[in-house]
Amino acid sequence: MTSEQLFEQIRAKKSFLSLGLDTDLSKIPQHILATEDPIFEFNKAIIDATADLVVAVKPNLAFYEVHGAAGWNSLLKTVKYIRSKYPKLFVIADAKRGDITSTAKMYARTFFQSLDCDAVTISPYMGKDSVDPFLGYKNKWVILLSLTSNESFADFQMIESKATGKRIFEEVIEKSMKWGTEDNTMYVVGATRTDFLKDIRKIAPNHFLLIPGVGEQGGSLQDVAHFGLNSKCGLLVNSSRGIIYADNTERFAEMARKKALQLQQEMEQILQSAGLLK
Amino acid sequence: MTSEQLFEQIRAKKSFLSLGLDTDLSKIPQHILATEDPIFEFNKAIIDATADLVVAVKPNLAFYEVHGAAGWNSLLKTVKYIRSKYPKLFVIADAKRGDITSTAKMYARTFFQSLDCDAVTISPYMGKDSVDPFLGYKNKWVILLSLTSNESFADFQMIESKATGKRIFEEVIEKSMKWGTEDNTMYVVGATRTDFLKDIRKIAPNHFLLIPGVGEQGGSLQDVAHFGLNSKCGLLVNSSRGIIYADNTERFAEMARKKALQLQQEMEQILQSAGLLK
Repeated sequence: MTSEQLFEQIRAKKSFLSLGLDTDLSKIPQHILATEDPIFEFNKAIIDATADLVVAVKPNLAFYEVHGAAGWNSLLKTVKYIRSKYPKLFVIADAKRGDITSTAKMYARTFFQSLDCDAVTISPYMGKDSVDPFLGYKNKWVILLSLTSNESFADFQMIESKATGKRIFEEVIEKSMKWGTEDNTMYVVGATRTDFLKDIRKIAPNHFLLIPGVGEQGGSLQDVAHFGLNSKCGLLVNSSRGIIYADNTERFAEMARKKALQLQQEMEQILQSAGLLK
Repeated sequence: MTSEQLFEQIRAKKSFLSLGLDTDLSKIPQHILATEDPIFEFNKAIIDATADLVVAVKPNLAFYEVHGAAGWNSLLKTVKYIRSKYPKLFVIADAKRGDITSTAKMYARTFFQSLDCDAVTISPYMGKDSVDPFLGYKNKWVILLSLTSNESFADFQMIESKATGKRIFEEVIEKSMKWGTEDNTMYVVGATRTDFLKDIRKIAPNHFLLIPGVGEQGGSLQDVAHFGLNSKCGLLVNSSRGIIYADNTERFAEMARKKALQLQQEMEQILQSAGLLK
């Protein structure tokens, strides 16, 4: 998918919401646990209930890998289901990989070919040659960690470079902008870090940003939009637990839709006010 | 496994060699491809041929994940085989994960419980709370990326902090030494970076270091030992492609043993000279 096509989807759905599928067997409704593949059944119900309200779906690999081969099959079935029923959804493998070139090539094959996702999250620690193999795929995306939403983000990301005066999260964006383009690179910026979004938009005014941490982690959608919105929206705001665990009875999908709808409606107003809707 | 037990194994085998299982279907012998689970059959043969010469085995997750559920099963079978036949081998999941606490907990369960590995490689980019969940497991290890062996290592790892004058790879070691102990934390330091091993040993004289990049990537074992050896050896030197792809005929396991034996013999001399053998 190109950035233009993604923006088209955002305008069509009046939403820049990403649905995080951190599907945890200990949190899903009892009646689903009795099915043959509870993770897939849960995901399918959540996706069907929200597909018209979200532009992206982001399965978090850890929640599938913990179940070994069965978990991988649930993930594969989930992505195949999205591909066949909702082909315009942007699928993000939230994997946070990062390794030497020969290994990175294998991860790129895994996420872009075997799983057929649109994007994969990558940790920048090992530098350019750990990212390059992902950038060789047409219409596929790398989403590089820049400024994350967790408490310990500052341990290394906020260290200021003696040579440039820039912080590591800024160094990541500045350097990697030369590796890829606005059509194959996004950045992860935590919604809890809105005070730095202004600085990031100075460096990368046109790139898409993936914003986790709205809801459960405490970030505000209005603040994110205020500092992060650009002329092509330029934002994918993710919510995981806030949507998928809104309820754990038989009404879970309906309640997930309700939560997603609240966010979509807030996003529609934001897009409307910014003059980004047709 | 404790560091003391690991050192005991090093003395018993006169080796600090780690065997990297980057098992690639495009590189393994033709006759193995005809078996039901070629990745497992290849690993099994390589492990049987080298188990008395190596103290650690390091499967690289990317090479298993690329085959989806089947790949995970090959990995699981490989680890189970090691656990049952060679229980004293130190098993490292080379996964380079790193995510927020709730996700990191899932990865810790995956690698320490579901797969029952001794250690997992972790990227430090997200800081302390992305590492903590792994440190809660008794006798399990986190191996944090510090200074990697790839060409682009300097992009971020070599940036010097304005506040401390230290480089990021040093900041990673200094900060994380307060999160864990010498009995649950190691560091990845590329064999191609021996010029910095001296600096690292000033910060962390007692920690074990995992050294990839000997052989195929050009690092020298003598240089690594010269700057990296400590009173409990303190080194695990990994070789992957140099051993497992020494030959791709029916003699592949025998030739892999030959390559591992060369490294073990060189290591025995190093340990002997340093007075570390009984």
